[in-house]
Amino acid sequence: MSEFVVGVDLGGTNVKTALVSRERKLIAKDSRPTRADEGPDAVMDVMQAAIDDLLKVEGVSRDQVIAAGFGAPGPMDWQSGVVFSPPNLAGWKNVPLAETMASRTGLRCFVDNDANCACYGEYWMGAGQGTESMAVLTLGTGVGGGVVVFGKLLRGIDGTAAELGHLKVQRDGRRCGCGARGCLEAYASVSGMVRTAVEGLEKGEESSLTEACGGKIDCLTGKMIFEAAVDGDAYARWVFKETATWLGLGISSIISYQNPEKVVLCGGMIDAGDILFDPVREVARAMSFEVPAKRCQIVPAGLGTDAGVLGAAGCALERAQCDG
Amino acid sequence: MSEFVVGVDLGGTNVKTALVSRERKLIAKDSRPTRADEGPDAVMDVMQAAIDDLLKVEGVSRDQVIAAGFGAPGPMDWQSGVVFSPPNLAGWKNVPLAETMASRTGLRCFVDNDANCACYGEYWMGAGQGTESMAVLTLGTGVGGGVVVFGKLLRGIDGTAAELGHLKVQRDGRRCGCGARGCLEAYASVSGMVRTAVEGLEKGEESSLTEACGGKIDCLTGKMIFEAAVDGDAYARWVFKETATWLGLGISSIISYQNPEKVVLCGGMIDAGDILFDPVREVARAMSFEVPAKRCQIVPAGLGTDAGVLGAAGCALERAQCDG
Repeated sequence: MSEFVVGVDLGGTNVKTALVSRERKLIAKDSRPTRADEGPDAVMDVMQAAIDDLLKVEGVSRDQVIAAGFGAPGPMDWQSGVVFSPPNLAGWKNVPLAETMASRTGLRCFVDNDANCACYGEYWMGAGQGTESMAVLTLGTGVGGGVVVFGKLLRGIDGTAAELGHLKVQRDGRRCGCGARGCLEAYASVSGMVRTAVEGLEKGEESSLTEACGGKIDCLTGKMIFEAAVDGDAYARWVFKETATWLGLGISSIISYQNPEKVVLCGGMIDAGDILFDPVREVARAMSFEVPAKRCQIVPAGLGTDAGVLGAAGCALERAQCDG
Repeated sequence: MSEFVVGVDLGGTNVKTALVSRERKLIAKDSRPTRADEGPDAVMDVMQAAIDDLLKVEGVSRDQVIAAGFGAPGPMDWQSGVVFSPPNLAGWKNVPLAETMASRTGLRCFVDNDANCACYGEYWMGAGQGTESMAVLTLGTGVGGGVVVFGKLLRGIDGTAAELGHLKVQRDGRRCGCGARGCLEAYASVSGMVRTAVEGLEKGEESSLTEACGGKIDCLTGKMIFEAAVDGDAYARWVFKETATWLGLGISSIISYQNPEKVVLCGGMIDAGDILFDPVREVARAMSFEVPAKRCQIVPAGLGTDAGVLGAAGCALERAQCDG
């Protein structure tokens, strides 16, 4: 009987692989360099070898594996499993990832957007376990999003749903990387937080941050702001609160839209703990209707950087079961 | 064989009733005064009589009716069918509407929020027919919302999902009726549009609107603004464009969230046609990713004021089929 599912997280730096039981138990995992600079075939060699090794070491035969899921950077056609041209995978252009990996591994293969996989991972095995409606915000260079409703990933008609970083929070606001203005991402990502800090410093705000970056304001990082905030720097704390206010505003839109049980925050920024979560929760609650605001827990991710690889496995299991 | 479904739209002024076939054909409809001022029992008498009359006239027996659906104003518990205390229905407090109407009519009865019913109506028989992902915005005193994903109404965990009028579009923006600031509703409802017009006139903008309201700016209505815009009044046209810009911004958040096939606009304001739709479409497109922006059609409602009663029937059919 088929009892296992394989997850693969195809990152620009590392390929992570995991073997998971149908009952959501992590059996084993693997991580190895992606070899992204050698092009798609080399990367697929890496993934094939990782899967082979994992199954061999664990003594699992192919007919015990229900499916393999691949979390890859978009844009892509998730249904056919074709990856178009991800910016951080050189030489990839319309690669039929699902089809090729199926023929290489002899497994049923499914491909999904990596942000969606991370969301599904938190839903399936992490902080969102047991919910049927939740959203994930991944705070990094940008703000990635994921949405589960009716216990299913919301992919949208073209697979572009749950771009929660591009909810608009300010008309004619900051220019976002996407070209639009006033996106949540422009304020609530790590880059947005740094931008907020830099803008204030340029206007003459006094802070230990100026020293921390050696006077080179352009070299300021999220980590420096976090450390200064922990050390009690008033300006750094204000920057965190400001960022959290934007985030709370965005989350109040999520609460109005979806009335979810949980909003899960991911990414390095969540290490800031209460400095971040307290004002986020306060603003989200103040800006929302009472019933859904009380319902919605705003919580840190439970799986850390494993959310993607575990979610890739979970997505594949769900799709295999739906397809019959 | 059960072939029909009954829809009831419980409004503050009129009760509308419709008999619809399983195949989405409207067989007959009825409208009569709600008698809201006489309290819940009188209103339920009205609904019971309307259903009885409709079935009698059409020669349909009770065992040919799969279910009856009631669209009622919130807040409510849609699952148990208890209506809490709607502002425009005097004397209603925790009325077990589904249970009472079931025992009065001998039919399976389901209750849903009226905004959700209007959305489902457009999905089931109106402008959203054939889609599996769509959203509805009803532009009136407020901005009502409805969302269909996976071909199902998104009700959320507490039945408060799809409050699209309370998506945040401006930090520290206009105070909204809900108590928060910067909600879409505060700008893109008819009341929001009037407020925009009044703010400008108070600042000395010149417009035929001053004359239209007889110098009493507080008496300005959406209709006056519409008529002035049609007559070519530059300021009235600017007010429409401004309102449409906020609406387009809100719709771009919907596109990012849901990647829907359609966003359907309802309410009297849509009679403005291109004056409204052109800038809405332009802004929504400019502020969204290309693929989902191209996918999403922004269209006027197809059912007018019948969306609610037809949707109530559709919701009941769906719920009866799900329950088995």
